[in-house]
Amino acid sequence: MASEPGDSRLAQKVLPSRAMSDDLTALVTGLAQRAKEASRVLANASTEQKNAVLRRVAGALRGEAGDHVLEANSKDMAAAQDMGLSTAMLDRLELDRKRLDGVADGLDQVAELPDPVGTVVEDRVLANGLRVGRMRAPLGLIGIIYESRPNVTADAASLCLKSGNAVLLRGGKEAFRSNTAIAEIFTRALEDEGLPPESVTLLPTTDRQATLVMIGLDGIVDMVIPRGGEGLIRFVAEHARVPVIQHYKGVCHVFVDRTADAEMALRIALNAKVQRPGVCNSMETLLVDADVAPTFLPKLAAKMEAEGVEIRADERAATYLNGVKRASAEDWDTEYLDLILNVGVVDGIDGALDHVAKHGSNHTEAIVTEDAAHADRWMHEVDASLVLVNASTRFNDGFALGLGAEIGISTTKLHAYGPMGLAELCTLKWVGQGEGQIRQ
Amino acid sequence: MASEPGDSRLAQKVLPSRAMSDDLTALVTGLAQRAKEASRVLANASTEQKNAVLRRVAGALRGEAGDHVLEANSKDMAAAQDMGLSTAMLDRLELDRKRLDGVADGLDQVAELPDPVGTVVEDRVLANGLRVGRMRAPLGLIGIIYESRPNVTADAASLCLKSGNAVLLRGGKEAFRSNTAIAEIFTRALEDEGLPPESVTLLPTTDRQATLVMIGLDGIVDMVIPRGGEGLIRFVAEHARVPVIQHYKGVCHVFVDRTADAEMALRIALNAKVQRPGVCNSMETLLVDADVAPTFLPKLAAKMEAEGVEIRADERAATYLNGVKRASAEDWDTEYLDLILNVGVVDGIDGALDHVAKHGSNHTEAIVTEDAAHADRWMHEVDASLVLVNASTRFNDGFALGLGAEIGISTTKLHAYGPMGLAELCTLKWVGQGEGQIRQ
Repeated sequence: MASEPGDSRLAQKVLPSRAMSDDLTALVTGLAQRAKEASRVLANASTEQKNAVLRRVAGALRGEAGDHVLEANSKDMAAAQDMGLSTAMLDRLELDRKRLDGVADGLDQVAELPDPVGTVVEDRVLANGLRVGRMRAPLGLIGIIYESRPNVTADAASLCLKSGNAVLLRGGKEAFRSNTAIAEIFTRALEDEGLPPESVTLLPTTDRQATLVMIGLDGIVDMVIPRGGEGLIRFVAEHARVPVIQHYKGVCHVFVDRTADAEMALRIALNAKVQRPGVCNSMETLLVDADVAPTFLPKLAAKMEAEGVEIRADERAATYLNGVKRASAEDWDTEYLDLILNVGVVDGIDGALDHVAKHGSNHTEAIVTEDAAHADRWMHEVDASLVLVNASTRFNDGFALGLGAEIGISTTKLHAYGPMGLAELCTLKWVGQGEGQIRQ
Repeated sequence: MASEPGDSRLAQKVLPSRAMSDDLTALVTGLAQRAKEASRVLANASTEQKNAVLRRVAGALRGEAGDHVLEANSKDMAAAQDMGLSTAMLDRLELDRKRLDGVADGLDQVAELPDPVGTVVEDRVLANGLRVGRMRAPLGLIGIIYESRPNVTADAASLCLKSGNAVLLRGGKEAFRSNTAIAEIFTRALEDEGLPPESVTLLPTTDRQATLVMIGLDGIVDMVIPRGGEGLIRFVAEHARVPVIQHYKGVCHVFVDRTADAEMALRIALNAKVQRPGVCNSMETLLVDADVAPTFLPKLAAKMEAEGVEIRADERAATYLNGVKRASAEDWDTEYLDLILNVGVVDGIDGALDHVAKHGSNHTEAIVTEDAAHADRWMHEVDASLVLVNASTRFNDGFALGLGAEIGISTTKLHAYGPMGLAELCTLKWVGQGEGQIRQ
């Protein structure tokens, strides 16, 4: 997920001293309670019922209901242009037939995924004959707080629905008409399949106080996932009374070990930096062992410059790169999301591990090495949601790692660390089947 | 874990308006930061090193250092008696040679358990040849907040240590001398084995403001586990800025289905209620299908009364039980932890599921049935950390479920649901081993 610069406005404009409207609190609490009640029915819905809803929504988006979504989106776009939103924000907001078909295809794909609910793992028989295991069960009611992309409404709702969770959506102000049109399609499809329409509830207001109420509903909302920029996530994490899945930023490194295959290292570095620079799993800093820096860095710089990448070097790297720009102290902690790359020289794997421990963001860290002991140390010692040996950092997402879908990437270690698919939207409850066993 | 009535004092005596001492904030923050730094070393300690520490502590407790603990405990006991603490609290506080040997045996047992750190699960090879899996890694720094039992100092420290986590301990005021003596043994053993002594840090104050500082250290403390009564847990959950593992109470049910083997149902009900009534996985309410209530309830009442159990019945159950006491509305939500049992008659499994959804505490729920479809519905539809068929509720703990140890039982669904052993004190990070794979 790319950072959305507009998100920080949410944090800036909140006035904590303002008295919260009782009406707003009652409205949001009431909607959340009804969604929570719906979650209890949804938790026991059959796979067929849930898939039927998803396919109905996909079909509707491809047909007349999709036209209504596009009309609503046109109004959102016109208003956003009047408000003077940036080109990047307008692009995130805009839907067209092609994008909408993509959303519909995504829904069909989620319908194809295996249902996690009710699957049992770690099944075993204890010495007393009691058969125990851990069964995946929905979390309950999940809150999603997001900004300008209206496709998140359908993506998030589909993943929550498939995993048996009800969802409370709080979208961005700019996309309100689009989000409402999409949510209404879910509501109708749920009703048509005999499931509670409140299973997918879009807050009818984008008032920031409504968000504060929503993230304070301990015991009703089971988990909140903010999707957007660092400002949004910090705001939610700071004010929430319910558990929050956090993903602040990706400052991802590639470390070129002394024993690295230089061609492989160049291929991985290039892919990690330029294949899609605007996403969180792209590389921001390349580290290289001092032993191979003199030969490797000039080759790297040539390749990167050919792709339009600006290099910012530390003092030691600069000695091998004529006229290169110097990295500032802040650069090593910056998620550029752009064609800019920090390059640093370190003393062996220990130097690389120290740098990553200091500047890494617990997201994705790769080593290129032919040394099995170094590979092993890297995998064990680096604290990141995905630790890679000889592969591009770009693999850290739910699709690339085979989860089939992704609702976000967690960089906190509680509950889920890394990409979250359907299984990570569930809990594991213990189940036990006995023949009258009692405790001795 | 039994409720500790004294714990609520923590919540009552906090004065949120009082200006927090800068010194205290600096002290606690500094200790936590050093413990966090220690956690990075501990995360990469070998299994042998960690086990050597545990065995050293066990040996020390059995020898001279144990005598010092007992002396410290005598002083705690004398002070507690002067303060007029209840007999129950004094019993929780007291250590003797036998209890201390039990603590030492527990440490040896933790040393025997497999090390979770570095184990890989869900190992698989993706279509592109990238081999991925999820490796258990420590969470970092775990905070434990507990009350009068000094053995928790050793239990919690040993489980955190074995799982590669540093621990910040905040024990009860009454046990301060005992806790300090035990923590010092860990510190020395860590030093002797070349591990950072700060890996086990006991707060040198039991000031409530210190607790507030500790549970506010977002980014330093990775998880807090309050061990004690509902008051303590609510206080921590309400004021924490770091993730909290909650376990409020166990209002556990046994439902006797229409098809139940009556003898089995009686055996399970008796075990669930009387084998150890003061713990969270004991039964508080028995529900019975209306069809079998007339024959089952008189038998149940006879057995329970012979064991000294007071029955509190609903209106329907009372018709089969002469002169029985009636249950009040609050009784159905009460964790008695005593020889008191609510008995209610329900209409089939749907009535039982409704009752449990309304009054259950997400802890342990058992059905006694010979009907496979009812067993299946119970396991899928009940939302509890352990859902049982034909077995006693008493099985919900880490030892009984084969985890080898337990640091607590989570009744919240995020991260861990149910008993938490060594694996639940870890996160799962993704690891990937490639041969130069890049993203297409």
